[in-house]
Amino acid sequence: MVGMRGAYGYNDNGNEGGVVVGGGEAEAEIAAMAVLHKVAAPPAQSTASKLKARVKETFFPDDPFRGFKGKPLTTKWVMAVQYLFPILDWVPSYSFSLFKSDLDHFGNILVMYRYTPTGISYAKLASLPPIIGLYSSFVPPMVYAVLGSSRDLAVGPVSIASLIMGSMLRQAVSPAAEPLLFLQLAFTSTFFAGLVQASLGILRLGFIIDFLSKATLVGFMAGAAIIVSLQQLKALLGIVHFTTEMGLVPVMASVIHHTKEWSWQTILMAVCFLVLLLTARHVSMKWPKLFWVSACAPLACVIVSTLLVFLFKAQKHGISIIGQLKCGLNRPSWDKLLFDPQYLGLTVKTGLVTGIISLTEGVAVGRTFASLKDYQVDGNKEMMAIGLMNIVGSCTSCYVTTGAFSRSAVNHNAGCKTAMSNVIMALTVMVTLLFLMPLFVYTPNVVLGAIIIAAVIGLIDLPAVYNIWKMDKMDFLVCLCAFAGVIFISVQQGLAIAVGISIFRVLLQITRPKMMIQGNIKGTDIYRNLHQYKDAQRVPGFLILTVEAPINFANTNYLNERIKRWIEEESSAGTKQSELHFVILDLSAVPAIDTSGISFLIDLKKSTEKHGLELILVNPTGEVMEKIQRANDAHGHFKSDSLYLTTGEAVASLSTFSKMTAP
Amino acid sequence: MVGMRGAYGYNDNGNEGGVVVGGGEAEAEIAAMAVLHKVAAPPAQSTASKLKARVKETFFPDDPFRGFKGKPLTTKWVMAVQYLFPILDWVPSYSFSLFKSDLDHFGNILVMYRYTPTGISYAKLASLPPIIGLYSSFVPPMVYAVLGSSRDLAVGPVSIASLIMGSMLRQAVSPAAEPLLFLQLAFTSTFFAGLVQASLGILRLGFIIDFLSKATLVGFMAGAAIIVSLQQLKALLGIVHFTTEMGLVPVMASVIHHTKEWSWQTILMAVCFLVLLLTARHVSMKWPKLFWVSACAPLACVIVSTLLVFLFKAQKHGISIIGQLKCGLNRPSWDKLLFDPQYLGLTVKTGLVTGIISLTEGVAVGRTFASLKDYQVDGNKEMMAIGLMNIVGSCTSCYVTTGAFSRSAVNHNAGCKTAMSNVIMALTVMVTLLFLMPLFVYTPNVVLGAIIIAAVIGLIDLPAVYNIWKMDKMDFLVCLCAFAGVIFISVQQGLAIAVGISIFRVLLQITRPKMMIQGNIKGTDIYRNLHQYKDAQRVPGFLILTVEAPINFANTNYLNERIKRWIEEESSAGTKQSELHFVILDLSAVPAIDTSGISFLIDLKKSTEKHGLELILVNPTGEVMEKIQRANDAHGHFKSDSLYLTTGEAVASLSTFSKMTAP
Repeated sequence: MVGMRGAYGYNDNGNEGGVVVGGGEAEAEIAAMAVLHKVAAPPAQSTASKLKARVKETFFPDDPFRGFKGKPLTTKWVMAVQYLFPILDWVPSYSFSLFKSDLDHFGNILVMYRYTPTGISYAKLASLPPIIGLYSSFVPPMVYAVLGSSRDLAVGPVSIASLIMGSMLRQAVSPAAEPLLFLQLAFTSTFFAGLVQASLGILRLGFIIDFLSKATLVGFMAGAAIIVSLQQLKALLGIVHFTTEMGLVPVMASVIHHTKEWSWQTILMAVCFLVLLLTARHVSMKWPKLFWVSACAPLACVIVSTLLVFLFKAQKHGISIIGQLKCGLNRPSWDKLLFDPQYLGLTVKTGLVTGIISLTEGVAVGRTFASLKDYQVDGNKEMMAIGLMNIVGSCTSCYVTTGAFSRSAVNHNAGCKTAMSNVIMALTVMVTLLFLMPLFVYTPNVVLGAIIIAAVIGLIDLPAVYNIWKMDKMDFLVCLCAFAGVIFISVQQGLAIAVGISIFRVLLQITRPKMMIQGNIKGTDIYRNLHQYKDAQRVPGFLILTVEAPINFANTNYLNERIKRWIEEESSAGTKQSELHFVILDLSAVPAIDTSGISFLIDLKKSTEKHGLELILVNPTGEVMEKIQRANDAHGHFKSDSLYLTTGEAVASLSTFSKMTAP
Repeated sequence: MVGMRGAYGYNDNGNEGGVVVGGGEAEAEIAAMAVLHKVAAPPAQSTASKLKARVKETFFPDDPFRGFKGKPLTTKWVMAVQYLFPILDWVPSYSFSLFKSDLDHFGNILVMYRYTPTGISYAKLASLPPIIGLYSSFVPPMVYAVLGSSRDLAVGPVSIASLIMGSMLRQAVSPAAEPLLFLQLAFTSTFFAGLVQASLGILRLGFIIDFLSKATLVGFMAGAAIIVSLQQLKALLGIVHFTTEMGLVPVMASVIHHTKEWSWQTILMAVCFLVLLLTARHVSMKWPKLFWVSACAPLACVIVSTLLVFLFKAQKHGISIIGQLKCGLNRPSWDKLLFDPQYLGLTVKTGLVTGIISLTEGVAVGRTFASLKDYQVDGNKEMMAIGLMNIVGSCTSCYVTTGAFSRSAVNHNAGCKTAMSNVIMALTVMVTLLFLMPLFVYTPNVVLGAIIIAAVIGLIDLPAVYNIWKMDKMDFLVCLCAFAGVIFISVQQGLAIAVGISIFRVLLQITRPKMMIQGNIKGTDIYRNLHQYKDAQRVPGFLILTVEAPINFANTNYLNERIKRWIEEESSAGTKQSELHFVILDLSAVPAIDTSGISFLIDLKKSTEKHGLELILVNPTGEVMEKIQRANDAHGHFKSDSLYLTTGEAVASLSTFSKMTAP
């Protein structure tokens, strides 16, 4: 039967797909056939133009310069400058009323200074001097206000990046024994983090952070929050000799082995402030209008605890305090950048990990608020802004900063409308740095620990975990692996494992693509998956298969074996009437094919022919059609009579033919 | 407009998708609408049964035990034993005529001994004593004959695995300085290679070797062939002080720096034999019936060169010879396996790399011949067989062996029909080992070098490279990277780079999935890509998009930005008449969706609603529909009136509705 039908096929050159009539008595029957539509290849393109299109779609999917087209040169220049400095977008139109709404929540003097204690706390989390945390809350927000394109992002030090930087650097250098070297390494890592971030933006490789899926991040954040909280047990219990390791097991062992060092005064204070902070948090979550309650709570705690210590001279009763901090603004630190080959590997690695993690957080936060207010954030531009901010930061005694979710949420709730909020925030930190530092002398470390715990507890997002569990069990597994990896192995390796599993999952989907048998939905020419649609029915004599993945090296062996097994099962099950004649492969859902894939199709064609079957391809998409055509040019497989535009047309045309040739 | 249409939608519970009539004057128009078909979710399944199905499809796609179903217990036992020892499949029915056809080409005494020189040559390539190559041509074929399921695979040492093992082990130990240790490491690596291979088979992880795409292999093989040939320059030019490095640059530098050591006698001999061997190869390729010409050429060269050396006492004129080899069969070597922690990392790594590479070669060769003769080879069973063969080999003084293409091709051309050919081959090697070893004393190394070059030159497959270039430029890039990496960096790293690029390419396809705008093909309800089909036309008021990839964490950001940009362009371009009302997302080609993907759909729904548009989903496949339904249960997005089975039905139904609501 194979190859006999050539003359009845639609013509090769006609566009409208007219039917070429064979001859003799079958004429009438053929005329009754529906008009067949030809499968077209996309218009021919040169390799260079195809490459250009591909590169554009990969690196410039947002087509950032589309607004520039057809504008006069001067306008183009103005637009380019505006593109590089988004501040020019909003400053000219910045009005007093906007300023008032930006300042609105800063009217409350307590909220104004709320970033001071968190800055200090996060610096301690990274094993850095507390003042670095304040420095990092001053310069980077100013830089971001000029370069950043998000109106809601509030930048500053964040817990996860602080944690990772501290843990990675501590592996090589002790912050207690060599404080200066540790500081140098921190600045250098920040420099590399900024470099990585800016490069990703400039090279338009922003999609790399997309590989951190939501499930990965949820698990990772929850694990990191627990690790961070565990670290605070040192301050909360007043333990002096604490482990330098981060995992759940060593920290708990350390806590239990040092019960003698526990100080009841410290624990009492810890419990009180923790309860206070968590209550404030709960109140703000329940009534969003009361956002300032949780926003002010940290500062209130610092003030109260400092007063308590000062009044009762509690530092002499086993409560450790921050101690003297120098007044004054950021000092330049470019002379502290250390490019010594001995530490280069470490700083580059630390910069890479903290850079990508903090970028992910910053871009995700920016996108979340942009979508809430329905404006667009240019991911690659954000990366350049955050990167430059960190490079400048590394030269002005700052460590890694990024857009923080909690800060941005407070700004958003308070009704901030432009990046000016970052400037105002920086100014309050400046006032603190210049005049208020002596006030922190008696601030107890325990209250900083409590502030950190209250801050990171929000990273454990149980509803999201539940949602992931309900939606997708594999995603839940990824989430769980990230969580367990962070808690039991290490922060970096937990992350690596989760990313690895996410990618492996995607590869597995390609390696074992979904294939379905389709049937006809009664009374229509719609063909759908038999398993999904109960009213779809098998068409006798046909095996209609769909493949739902690119056909490439990773799955051709599988597809080959699977299809052959199906044919075998069909052939052995078929009765005389329903004997299998045609194998239809619906390629609608195959977006791409590579050389292995083409070889697979050719092999399949040959082997079906050996079994007396005919292989029909339906609706190959652009790229696939192009390659099938090239294979046809070279070897003459897949003539036009084995290509159809829809399954319906293929079945109609082939059944008619079957009937005609039947005895 | 959004949400107003609820009452006109098809009913939620009916299976046949009857139309619920709204009321008033529009009745007639609605009645004219075609019957709508409901999108169904696949039948509900528990997580456990879904997991089971997934695991089965991932690890047991070939359903190896399907023949066992419904058989009595004793039959099952017999089948299980036959499954483990495929020899039992063919030995009972092995007849004298089959034996004759297997023996047929061995009737030629020269062909019979053709494996001897290649075995010796490959052992030298791995820096092992020549006799190991013969041992490796004796035991492994016997083991494979019992366990292997391919009838055509001829096993023995192969060039690539020899090259890699030699180069990896030489990095740690010098074969000249510590020959015993080197030998121990080789056996131990072989043991681990076997272990890796058998484990991949038992754990049914065979798909891992699928990640070596054809393009990767073509580039890698060509690079390796050149590296191997370059190594032979030592023997071919008679250089004594040769570099131990493998790259193109150091080898050529070494050749040029040691011009004084070049020996004209050696070079003359090299040129003569090389011409002879390559001519023989050419003859056999042109006339496949003369396959025995190239099959016998190596042995003929060995005999002639040995005689020449013996007669002219050429070893005294600067021609290096193999020297004394001990007679006798393989000695046990399990006491030589070295699990010293100092070398454990090296041997495991070497075993892993050589194991996977040789497995890839063996399985690919087996599959090629199986598809030529139209029988099935079970990949996982093959892996177990090859793995066990190498484990046994490592205990009997053999190094890594696998199915070799050239050997199998000769067997195939000679008309061998069963794995018995492996047994006969092993017997000829046994005869050599027992009685013929003294004959090799005067065999010059130069002839072995020429034999290796003639053998590996076939690995450079220029037609395949040309085909890849024509078919797929990205595949060509992968091929080129593998080639350049092997030649300029190192064999292992070249391979790693090529595999990395292949996987990155697959990931990129997911990260930047193809999206197309579809139009209606005039006079039909077929919707196809506007770019590919010139006679497809836009439907005014509709933006019909297809996504051709799973929607997951890696591409939701891209899809989001890209779709929003399209909507923006459409909205700004549309005139009053063709104003955009509906965005149709055809999900036919979306095989899977994860939690990020569902969030993306919900976000898109919300943001289109903000722009006064309606998002319609068409034909979600089983898994996608299930998750959309779950999202619907939880949040109430995607009611049934925004889901259609085909684009045609959606457009028909929605245009009718548009007309009705128009003023």
